[in-house]
Amino acid sequence: MRLSPRHPRYASLKVRHRLAEAHRSGLVVPEGLIAHGRGEAFDYFLGERTSPSAQRAEHAAAEWLLAAKRPVVSVNGNVAALAAKEVAALARSVPGLRVEVNLFHRTGARARQVAAALRAAGVTDVLGVRPSGTIPRLPSDRAKVDRRGIAVADVCLIPLEDGDRTEALQALGKRVISVDLNPLSRTSRAADLPIVDDVQRALAEIARAARRLREGTPASGFRAFDRYRALSEAIDAITDGLNRAAARRPSARRPRRASPRRPRGSGGRTRRTT
Amino acid sequence: MRLSPRHPRYASLKVRHRLAEAHRSGLVVPEGLIAHGRGEAFDYFLGERTSPSAQRAEHAAAEWLLAAKRPVVSVNGNVAALAAKEVAALARSVPGLRVEVNLFHRTGARARQVAAALRAAGVTDVLGVRPSGTIPRLPSDRAKVDRRGIAVADVCLIPLEDGDRTEALQALGKRVISVDLNPLSRTSRAADLPIVDDVQRALAEIARAARRLREGTPASGFRAFDRYRALSEAIDAITDGLNRAAARRPSARRPRRASPRRPRGSGGRTRRTT
Repeated sequence: MRLSPRHPRYASLKVRHRLAEAHRSGLVVPEGLIAHGRGEAFDYFLGERTSPSAQRAEHAAAEWLLAAKRPVVSVNGNVAALAAKEVAALARSVPGLRVEVNLFHRTGARARQVAAALRAAGVTDVLGVRPSGTIPRLPSDRAKVDRRGIAVADVCLIPLEDGDRTEALQALGKRVISVDLNPLSRTSRAADLPIVDDVQRALAEIARAARRLREGTPASGFRAFDRYRALSEAIDAITDGLNRAAARRPSARRPRRASPRRPRGSGGRTRRTT
Repeated sequence: MRLSPRHPRYASLKVRHRLAEAHRSGLVVPEGLIAHGRGEAFDYFLGERTSPSAQRAEHAAAEWLLAAKRPVVSVNGNVAALAAKEVAALARSVPGLRVEVNLFHRTGARARQVAAALRAAGVTDVLGVRPSGTIPRLPSDRAKVDRRGIAVADVCLIPLEDGDRTEALQALGKRVISVDLNPLSRTSRAADLPIVDDVQRALAEIARAARRLREGTPASGFRAFDRYRALSEAIDAITDGLNRAAARRPSARRPRRASPRRPRGSGGRTRRTT
């Protein structure tokens, strides 16, 4: 399908098209496409840009990742399809950050495909293709992790993750940083540091913030993050966006006739068929 | 994947699972899955039930379909996957209603597959598998229609349709009834009678209303419908839902520690790796 840059939803349609292509290649599963659609609805009301509140969360995330002893970013099919380059930039910006493939709908072939997409984008070392550990309290396939990565991480950045896994990681005492456009999802509600933003924008901003932090005086330890405030601000931003969109209600359009009208191609009679 | 009925999102997950299966069989395209996800986000805030305003729109839709000379319901892959039975019930409730396959991503095989799903659900006569007409002002494949159906219809019910096609149908003087969970979509904004509801719930309710209307005194002609009010009420319902959901903010959860904590499996040291 060709897209016209003049289409009112061009940017969003381009990403959507890219994800559909990634699905055809097997990288993204059907459930991942549905999840992306949900995110699209939220991002639409956020104006498809990073809110000041999300930017503060992204800077705090950069601090936490730099303060971590064993930071890991978890990558699934949607993250690889949408933001492989941003994962690579993040890995370059945060020393010691491990990149681990972690799939909800796991097959060996898909894990290898996600790893290949990451390597093609410039990630040099990818964990999780041959899992060597498990997370307790999760069904078998979803629990598979790498003993050098998520299993021993103290800080996990989990973009586009599900609520069960978020809580399972926290039960192990790990700090969880989420990226999820829905501030009301179980993941966002559970995360220690919830980022309500698009995955590409969020990872790029965390990488930029990490580079800047490393140039200055590094912070000491884990600065407190007000997750309650971050989620409240995200909800307010979405409500504002919805109300702004609603203010552009269709009153300006031409009024529709209430009386019967004659469709082209019909005989023009107005008898009822009941 | 097995779903637990105790999961907080069980009903939504079941529909999601059904759509993913329909996609694996080729009935639903990747773009259809993404579109479903967008709808899910809106339905979540509508409380996954028909609002009083949507119900009024569905009753008006039943009147319009009964008042129409040549009513048609347009069916795409998502509609067939989610609501084939409801389309069949509607066809039984509205005399003369034609059911036409109409696909954005059209192939002959998919058109036949949608028709087969409709027939399996009890629709006796399905148009649109071998298109015989075109709608002006649309790219070739999307313009294909049946000369006995959409081409000559005076009222078109178009669940889950796109904005371009909605406007192209209206340019031909047809009355358009849309079903779309996003009250701000181009389709909802353009339709003469926008229904903001889930497709299964909406079609079932229109069918019920049509049966009741036929038992009583039928209305004469097309009663005026206040589309501005309908969309405003839908937007208000979504905003209310968002605010209610926001009121259940995560303040009640256990507070997260701001100080560093020791992850299991790590050496327990707290040095920074920057």
